[in-house]
Amino acid sequence: MSSTEQAANSGPAGSSGQVVADYWAAAEARDWTAFGALLAEDVVYEAPQTRERVSGREAYLRFNSEGFPGDWHLAVERIVGQDRAAVSMIQFSEGEVTQPGLCFFDLDEDGSIVRITDFWPDPYEAPAGRAYLAGRY
Amino acid sequence: MSSTEQAANSGPAGSSGQVVADYWAAAEARDWTAFGALLAEDVVYEAPQTRERVSGREAYLRFNSEGFPGDWHLAVERIVGQDRAAVSMIQFSEGEVTQPGLCFFDLDEDGSIVRITDFWPDPYEAPAGRAYLAGRY
Repeated sequence: MSSTEQAANSGPAGSSGQVVADYWAAAEARDWTAFGALLAEDVVYEAPQTRERVSGREAYLRFNSEGFPGDWHLAVERIVGQDRAAVSMIQFSEGEVTQPGLCFFDLDEDGSIVRITDFWPDPYEAPAGRAYLAGRY
Repeated sequence: MSSTEQAANSGPAGSSGQVVADYWAAAEARDWTAFGALLAEDVVYEAPQTRERVSGREAYLRFNSEGFPGDWHLAVERIVGQDRAAVSMIQFSEGEVTQPGLCFFDLDEDGSIVRITDFWPDPYEAPAGRAYLAGRY
């Protein structure tokens, strides 16, 4: 990465967010070369809900390219970036099923993604005890 | 809110994050006066997993003060803020049970919280088909 690009990544708000926008665009395109170019060699992926962990760029590329077969698509709903952190909310869809995905990213000082913490919240029943306090949509 | 405070909230990165830090500190303290002072009159809360929606400051104060009884505590793990948006990751605990909570916030031009999108991701079984691609922790 050039020093100009490094400066951009440590610069104004939004640059870590741009890296994350590029990450999702590469995933949607199954462009694993572009995807891998955004990752640090020592990237660590964790999914706290399943306690899955993947360490290193090569392993994480394989996790993505082999671990999610199927004709899925994703749409980025929002990205919030600050300094070397960013968070994304996406909608991941396959056929009729759409699910939100929430992902926290940390970038290293070169602007490469070095840590990913990934959440896939499923629907659940609203607690009956607070039903009188909230509407439904 | 004074114009000085308004300027701070539209200023450098971190000011929307400070509002969210104050929000969680007030919740942990059950200081509903301080909590309410951070909210816009027309705040809307949504929980996409349950499709609960609460509209307006008074209703949202009641939702929090009445809807979550018990001796819970929360710890903020991280906050990422950009412009008038911020995202928090907290750990919510009650007794031995701890659960992550992820919350997206939008602030209005006065720096008051006007929209909250709240997720509580539960553990789930890792898909067997990708077990060879990830370790566990």
